[in-house]
Amino acid sequence: MNKNEIRYFPLGGAGEIGRNMHVFSLEDRYLIVDCGVQFPDNSMLGVDYIIPDMQILQGKEDKIVGVVITHGHEDHIGGLSYLFDIVENVPIYATPLTAGLIEVKLMRAGKLSKTKINVIAAGDVLELGPFQIETFHMTHSIPDCIGLAISTPHGYIVMSGDYKLDPTPIDNWPSDYSKLAQLGEKGVLALFSDSTNAERPGMTPSERDIDEAFEEVFAKTTGRIIISSFASLISRLQQVATIAIKNERKICIVGTSMVDNVALAKKLGYLDMPESEIVSLEEALKLPDHKVLILCTGSQGEPTSILGRLSTGKYYAFSINPGDTVLLSSSPIPGNEEQISNVINRLYRMGANVIYNSVLSIHVSGHACQEEMKMLVNFLKPKYIIPTHGELRHLHQHARLMKQMGYDDEHVLVIENGQSLIIADGKVLLGDKVPATMVLVDGTNVGDMDMDIMYQRERLSENGVVVVSLVFDKKHHGLIQEPVIVHYGLMAGKEIPEVEGELSRQVIEYCAKKNNMESNNIQKNIEQLVRKFFYNATRRSPWVIVNPLYV
Amino acid sequence: MNKNEIRYFPLGGAGEIGRNMHVFSLEDRYLIVDCGVQFPDNSMLGVDYIIPDMQILQGKEDKIVGVVITHGHEDHIGGLSYLFDIVENVPIYATPLTAGLIEVKLMRAGKLSKTKINVIAAGDVLELGPFQIETFHMTHSIPDCIGLAISTPHGYIVMSGDYKLDPTPIDNWPSDYSKLAQLGEKGVLALFSDSTNAERPGMTPSERDIDEAFEEVFAKTTGRIIISSFASLISRLQQVATIAIKNERKICIVGTSMVDNVALAKKLGYLDMPESEIVSLEEALKLPDHKVLILCTGSQGEPTSILGRLSTGKYYAFSINPGDTVLLSSSPIPGNEEQISNVINRLYRMGANVIYNSVLSIHVSGHACQEEMKMLVNFLKPKYIIPTHGELRHLHQHARLMKQMGYDDEHVLVIENGQSLIIADGKVLLGDKVPATMVLVDGTNVGDMDMDIMYQRERLSENGVVVVSLVFDKKHHGLIQEPVIVHYGLMAGKEIPEVEGELSRQVIEYCAKKNNMESNNIQKNIEQLVRKFFYNATRRSPWVIVNPLYV
Repeated sequence: MNKNEIRYFPLGGAGEIGRNMHVFSLEDRYLIVDCGVQFPDNSMLGVDYIIPDMQILQGKEDKIVGVVITHGHEDHIGGLSYLFDIVENVPIYATPLTAGLIEVKLMRAGKLSKTKINVIAAGDVLELGPFQIETFHMTHSIPDCIGLAISTPHGYIVMSGDYKLDPTPIDNWPSDYSKLAQLGEKGVLALFSDSTNAERPGMTPSERDIDEAFEEVFAKTTGRIIISSFASLISRLQQVATIAIKNERKICIVGTSMVDNVALAKKLGYLDMPESEIVSLEEALKLPDHKVLILCTGSQGEPTSILGRLSTGKYYAFSINPGDTVLLSSSPIPGNEEQISNVINRLYRMGANVIYNSVLSIHVSGHACQEEMKMLVNFLKPKYIIPTHGELRHLHQHARLMKQMGYDDEHVLVIENGQSLIIADGKVLLGDKVPATMVLVDGTNVGDMDMDIMYQRERLSENGVVVVSLVFDKKHHGLIQEPVIVHYGLMAGKEIPEVEGELSRQVIEYCAKKNNMESNNIQKNIEQLVRKFFYNATRRSPWVIVNPLYV
Repeated sequence: MNKNEIRYFPLGGAGEIGRNMHVFSLEDRYLIVDCGVQFPDNSMLGVDYIIPDMQILQGKEDKIVGVVITHGHEDHIGGLSYLFDIVENVPIYATPLTAGLIEVKLMRAGKLSKTKINVIAAGDVLELGPFQIETFHMTHSIPDCIGLAISTPHGYIVMSGDYKLDPTPIDNWPSDYSKLAQLGEKGVLALFSDSTNAERPGMTPSERDIDEAFEEVFAKTTGRIIISSFASLISRLQQVATIAIKNERKICIVGTSMVDNVALAKKLGYLDMPESEIVSLEEALKLPDHKVLILCTGSQGEPTSILGRLSTGKYYAFSINPGDTVLLSSSPIPGNEEQISNVINRLYRMGANVIYNSVLSIHVSGHACQEEMKMLVNFLKPKYIIPTHGELRHLHQHARLMKQMGYDDEHVLVIENGQSLIIADGKVLLGDKVPATMVLVDGTNVGDMDMDIMYQRERLSENGVVVVSLVFDKKHHGLIQEPVIVHYGLMAGKEIPEVEGELSRQVIEYCAKKNNMESNNIQKNIEQLVRKFFYNATRRSPWVIVNPLYV
């Protein structure tokens, strides 16, 4: 093994659901970049989120030199509290806003004492064990993002982080083009680059581009304005607040995560929103309608969010009235399309004027589109490109774009999570595979979910459950009493007593046959009988539980 | 009541999920236009489809003059077999391809004898009881579509049907502009107009526009080409077949619905695909890769479709090989985004080159966009507009567009299903509400699904189910044996025996207290104990079933 050999391990569950954690090793020391969660798709019933499979780190806590976080979104920081269940005393390095968000998260999870959060600034150079890491500012949909450049004797390993090349960001702090150009001059061996929008042509519009649409809405609206967005989209909150103040509307912030994020961003100087312009919900509800802007969460249609509850009339504090204008300043995260659509439909039904991205441009993506991806490659001139972030389809599409730029299969590596890379002697080659299964989290318990449990939930969800309890006489083998049949999620209607009666008769009849009673498979056989019965009666296949008790 | 008063009843379940059936009444006679199904969203666990609430037709079979079908898509014909459970001997009127598709459908459901299918041609005038109906050709994504114009003394009631204004349709049969202009000249009282794409600006591209992209793929590809699309998208099948023949590839059609539709469309002259160019799958697999085009279903990622099974390696007849090029010539129906994305990711993983609409224009919508909607209004100059088809958000957006054209609230009526209209004296006014609940179909039994059952399935799907069986002594009230605990979809892992043991101990302890045993609520109390236990142990809330048996 080459002394300078760096290994790279992409982690985060199955390849199609995103890469939330990166591990580099050099001289038996480990560097972690980001540690996020992924949200489950609709088929993962009851799963709260998916965390990266961290087993390759087990027992290595003395060898981990640190965790560098590129920005404060959940899919980059949400896994930290689980990381500290496995390793302790590993320091974190993050820019101020990112550090603030991590602190809140770890405090809530009771894990703050297990690490030290080091606040860094974009441009800092970190010396972590054998790793020398240069940081540089990148624009995205949350302030204070960084990209990383890890030095190697054969050129830099650059991680773009999540980025867009926004020429007019709300905080007036564009990406560090001069650093990108310098890195390109010095030589980049490998670029790990954001692929999220690889299917979208052109350039992502600037955050500033949507000001006009907001101005238009504020100018035309005489009723209340309610805007929902991502709580972490600090720049959007700034934009909206600025326009509200200009239009003499007071700002009311509703929802814990939004209130917390606003407080943190104000404290750290990322948000300019004078206290005099902010009112409580109580005050807001007393103001004339044309004097109010309400900011809330729920732009993904989450049923428990403020907007979700407003749309079903279940928010205790106030209701949507005809004349209200509701803006969803966001775009659907894949899988949320339906629930967002339902929220929009319900708000319309309540008489609101609903404005969302497909009718007016009030949201832009935070990720680079195709032309920006190419431009980043023009800046950095990397020898190797490893598409990163996004589903497998986005990684492949990113690779297609790079091939248009003259890269060949050997120099664009589409890898799935768990497929390690060996970076040595100026080359990047495929290494071994390491475990990268999906670790599903439901409730507090980690790791006690598996695909069997998912399958059982799916089956239960499709046709419900039937429980048949039977009490047998231990000695004489006979049924002592009639079967007790209960079912849930299976069927409604007045035919139920008849159906249950018939099933009961069939079970009794079956049990009455002496040779059946002595069968070892009585439980299985009756389960099969019940399954068959319901399939014939209803063409449904409920989950069947038969409980034989012997007394 | 005015003798000439026409009433209109929009049917199809809750307003946000589409309008699949229209009923008009005049002089106590009823005319039905279309009778389709809607597909459930992801939250409707285990539901196969949703049919319109037809109870207003119950007992009226002698008064129904006929069902006129505008085109052969499932959301316009899929409810017919349920209609004939309620009313018999009601004739159907449809153009040849539509009639053919209906015949197959009713034959399979064993309902063909309950109606008479009358084949009509676009341009025909139907006299059905008091209704005089003029039909006219419209372009859409299936051949042989018609719009309808019902005469009234105060102008026509026009139904656009699903349409786009395609200037170069594959069958070279554009919409009947001259008829539309004539209707506009004579006077249109009310237009019921397709709203599906009301959020999309511009014009929908022509079906012909995607030829170029297909030509490009065929020219560049040396491996097998596998194209999946909607089985009903006859024009797409024609396009692809024409290009395949030109490129000397034999055509292989896989999947029952596609095979059936091709046979029907060929027989009726809607598809020009010489027998000599078609091969069986067996033959196709023996041909060199560059000589093969396989057409199959599954463009919505349905797990049981051919493409769905190919993507999981579960199709018995053949497998995806590296070098295969797979085209998904379709766009996601809302709610299917995730499962389509999963299919694309899996095909990539198998080494296929995957091409879909976001990377190359190989699909266009069959519905009119904003400029076409406006153009239709320019032709027809209706006094009233009733946005139809699409979710509530699309109806409202359609109304917004019409307001840009000078219509006011009184003349653009956004109504939900069940909200009837009164069309009399040259006016359209809101009438009574009639029942329009969602009728959910799961398996064969109709009507025995309700929202409670949906709720139970949702609960079961989130955290699984726990069944605790208890056998008590009838006389002495004591537990005779240890509780039997089974659970599914709740948890996996090695802590299970420990967790179960602890629960068992707590139940025994509870039952041991004499006053507990005599409580009437013993079942409820133990259920609560079990729920609390699992919440504390795992933060999960399974569905709990406690079965006390007394012997």
